[in-house]
Amino acid sequence: MVERILADRVREPSRTIGRGQASVNIALCKYWGKRNRELNLPFNSSLSVTLPGMDVETELLPGSGDRDEIELCGPGGTLPDDAADRVSGFLDLFRPRPDFRFRVRTRSSVPPAAGLASSAAAFASLVRALDDLFQWRLGPRELSILARLGSGSACRSMYRGVVIWHAGVRNDGMDSFAEPLNIGWEALRIGVVMISASRKGVGSRPGMDHTVETSPLFACWPETAERDLAAILGALEARDLERLGVAAECNALCMHATMIAARPPLVYWTAQTVTAMRTVWELRRAGCPVYFTIDAGPNLKLLYAAGETAAVRRAFGEIRECAPLAANE
Amino acid sequence: MVERILADRVREPSRTIGRGQASVNIALCKYWGKRNRELNLPFNSSLSVTLPGMDVETELLPGSGDRDEIELCGPGGTLPDDAADRVSGFLDLFRPRPDFRFRVRTRSSVPPAAGLASSAAAFASLVRALDDLFQWRLGPRELSILARLGSGSACRSMYRGVVIWHAGVRNDGMDSFAEPLNIGWEALRIGVVMISASRKGVGSRPGMDHTVETSPLFACWPETAERDLAAILGALEARDLERLGVAAECNALCMHATMIAARPPLVYWTAQTVTAMRTVWELRRAGCPVYFTIDAGPNLKLLYAAGETAAVRRAFGEIRECAPLAANE
Repeated sequence: MVERILADRVREPSRTIGRGQASVNIALCKYWGKRNRELNLPFNSSLSVTLPGMDVETELLPGSGDRDEIELCGPGGTLPDDAADRVSGFLDLFRPRPDFRFRVRTRSSVPPAAGLASSAAAFASLVRALDDLFQWRLGPRELSILARLGSGSACRSMYRGVVIWHAGVRNDGMDSFAEPLNIGWEALRIGVVMISASRKGVGSRPGMDHTVETSPLFACWPETAERDLAAILGALEARDLERLGVAAECNALCMHATMIAARPPLVYWTAQTVTAMRTVWELRRAGCPVYFTIDAGPNLKLLYAAGETAAVRRAFGEIRECAPLAANE
Repeated sequence: MVERILADRVREPSRTIGRGQASVNIALCKYWGKRNRELNLPFNSSLSVTLPGMDVETELLPGSGDRDEIELCGPGGTLPDDAADRVSGFLDLFRPRPDFRFRVRTRSSVPPAAGLASSAAAFASLVRALDDLFQWRLGPRELSILARLGSGSACRSMYRGVVIWHAGVRNDGMDSFAEPLNIGWEALRIGVVMISASRKGVGSRPGMDHTVETSPLFACWPETAERDLAAILGALEARDLERLGVAAECNALCMHATMIAARPPLVYWTAQTVTAMRTVWELRRAGCPVYFTIDAGPNLKLLYAAGETAAVRRAFGEIRECAPLAANE
């Protein structure tokens, strides 16, 4: 597939350094489960908002020696053992000759592997850096397909704002790409409740494979997610926070339910996750319209309107807050 | 259906007082979801063990006045508002004449409505008291069908030891009854970890109806439960605690997953529930073979062998422990 995208662009680097940047994205309709593991082709389409300010920057240079040099810096300290191998395996797709080596320097403002989609931003920024180094000058759709090959949800980090990732139906994945939807919503806030920034027990990649293989409830997921996506899109177009929040919350819980039913079970929640969920429901009962989503980790991401920031901070303390759709209006 | 069972037995009481007793049961393969609400006909067969010592006793007398007198005593204090109405509605099935009134006195050693299946024992003991008062002299299979009409899982409390409730396929429910399996297992222990004895937010009756109606994952449940039942039966016959524990734990989590995916979500877990689940998994990793099941409430029921009692108490403090299959050997 890479060949179909790069065509006659495979060549030695055009520049001495390539640079790329991308932000993490939070899925409101989740990606969970691959119909093709090698190409990261999903069972269902998904939808996210990109969080400006939670960024990964990558510098890419031709390397020397007999292996890639991969340096990943971020607030979370060292990356998982397999992160460098995974990056190197991804770079295999792009070497102009078999003995070509890369130097990769990545700086992240996001703790890795805490369910904050740092790998999505990392692979999206790496693909931008590749495009810059080799001067491919690919369009964003092609870049999103290349990013998908590194980490499925990375294709959504190729854009700002609301992004849809079309699952596609083709076996070669050429119709499984991300595209932005031009939806502005000045008042929408996303707040990250950091319950734990430590490494989660099971990464989302093995987690979703395990769920697909063993969860007796997974068969019901893809169709549910497609229905949720339509509801979430409608709510975003109508700027209807309640419809958006309810649909996103249910979609996240449905995804977690498929994991909880996996065998052995996969429970990303901690006691504090359940406490935080209950706090959100208490806030709603008290008249404060706030909703949550949860990725493959213990942390909650809250959805609310700008006017509720003070109430949310009273309930949750310091949260990291974004206005992800303000720039699109 | 009651007419088909009682036939020509409908008559004035033969005695001045009827007495019945029954114990709660803990499902290892869960009953969740009704294909017929009026007759409490389930989608899937289920399997339980009865817990001797966690009993409900019922005294039943002819009453006077224009309504039933229903007195329910137990450690949990007052019963839910609708409990007396529910008992009275059930007794409607058995009045020898429309203006016949009952007096019901129930004593329970189990906190009601805390996910400890007290209603199952209550309806099973009430059916026994009816049989005694009217001297129907029905067999246990017929009594289990009558108890099922009061509360589905009550049919399983009609027996001691391991009990299977056959889902049946008939619309009239005459093939949806419980029967005991003669399985002894001296060393098997069930320990109840009381996280909360307070009233749960949503009873299991509305909870399962809500799940059937709204959970997009429920469609996968009945077949899964039937497969789990076969695995649990095989493990019981082999006295294989690991197989039993793994299958029962997965079955319970799968049931909870269907609820978590309901819309709005139905989460019976509290933070302490998740902590207790994780404690069980920690114990297993440390070499202590203990497993859990969870009903429609926050409390865990642990499965382990007699030799692990001390380790379980060290981890969970005071637990209420039963040897449910010791008497069957």
